[in-house]
Amino acid sequence: MIMGKVFGTVISTSKNSQLVGYKFMLVQHIENDALVDKFLVAVDGVGAGIGEKVLVATGSAARLALDNKDAPVDAAIVGIIDEKQG
Amino acid sequence: MIMGKVFGTVISTSKNSQLVGYKFMLVQHIENDALVDKFLVAVDGVGAGIGEKVLVATGSAARLALDNKDAPVDAAIVGIIDEKQG
Amino acid sequence: MIMGKVFGTVISTSKNSQLVGYKFMLVQHIENDALVDKFLVAVDGVGAGIGEKVLVATGSAARLALDNKDAPVDAAIVGIIDEKQG
Amino acid sequence: MIMGKVFGTVISTSKNSQLVGYKFMLVQHIENDALVDKFLVAVDGVGAGIGEKVLVATGSAARLALDNKDAPVDAAIVGIIDEKQG
Amino acid sequence: MIMGKVFGTVISTSKNSQLVGYKFMLVQHIENDALVDKFLVAVDGVGAGIGEKVLVATGSAARLALDNKDAPVDAAIVGIIDEKQG
Repeated sequence: MIMGKVFGTVISTSKNSQLVGYKFMLVQHIENDALVDKFLVAVDGVGAGIGEKVLVATGSAARLALDNKDAPVDAAIVGIIDEKQG
Repeated sequence: MIMGKVFGTVISTSKNSQLVGYKFMLVQHIENDALVDKFLVAVDGVGAGIGEKVLVATGSAARLALDNKDAPVDAAIVGIIDEKQG
Repeated sequence: MIMGKVFGTVISTSKNSQLVGYKFMLVQHIENDALVDKFLVAVDGVGAGIGEKVLVATGSAARLALDNKDAPVDAAIVGIIDEKQG
Repeated sequence: MIMGKVFGTVISTSKNSQLVGYKFMLVQHIENDALVDKFLVAVDGVGAGIGEKVLVATGSAARLALDNKDAPVDAAIVGIIDEKQG
Repeated sequence: MIMGKVFGTVISTSKNSQLVGYKFMLVQHIENDALVDKFLVAVDGVGAGIGEKVLVATGSAARLALDNKDAPVDAAIVGIIDEKQG
């Protein structure tokens, strides 16, 4: 999974019908505790808010996260990070 | 999903028979509000036009976007972006 | 899909039995109309020749392109590019 | 598979219900015997400890590693590396 | 597929039970005839030796290469390269 921080939201009105109702979050990657200049858009699966650190699952795992095998998504937020140890 | 901007179209006459009828768009990646020197070709699934900001789903999600499990595609435009907040 | 140019062919005698009969092409990536120093090997699915610009589908899409769900391939040429507009 | 070193653990209380009970490890990539500035979060499937060198399988392979086809994960530790020869 | 050169072997005693019996090879990427500083670990599916140039299939293709749909692997050597033309 990718570790990232929720940077903002993305609004799309004209979209695939299977995506209606989902919230799209712009997530910035974190590498070695620092935000890096790399972003992806992930569907929120856990109620994450802007500024929170999250885990993003990519690929077919994203559909499992949403429990919707027909949603054309390739990234979903699957957890909010409390802390990192080590 | 990848956030990008539709840069142009790609015309291919000699192609896999499952791809006939699809529109291929050249999409330039957007990172942190700026266009970056990275491109991919995605099938249009939402009627996107040149210059529009879009969401692109990659991998097996692309077939779901087209509702065609036999199409040999790995990227599809699944939404047109209205705005980004945050 | 990746936009690329067929650079050459790759010959492999000792290979997985499901790959016998396929033609392996070395494809160089094109970004923003320029060849970049990035390559991949793709199975030819459309009769592409050296020097032609092509579309390459990656991942499970490659098996769909060959219509062979048992072939251990992750990249296939799915179209020959006539032109790019925009 | 990716070769990496377990750097630490990641704690997430609010997460997808299919992820409850798994241990998330922050893994740093190793390239050519050296740690590089690239990280990913992988579910532990073999009881790996901090500081150990491991093999990480990505994509759908991660669900096979956990023997849980419903877990929304895209990376799992599948082996602890004893040594590298050559 | 990735073109690479077998650099060495990786030994793992404590590993996922589905991986017992497989040989893990450290493969260095080749780009434009030159070895680059990028590596991955692939299961050997064709009896490749150290120093040989090989084709590596990634993702779900790796399980097809091993003919084992339960093996948590994401990369397998599927061919030994005799020569490259062009």
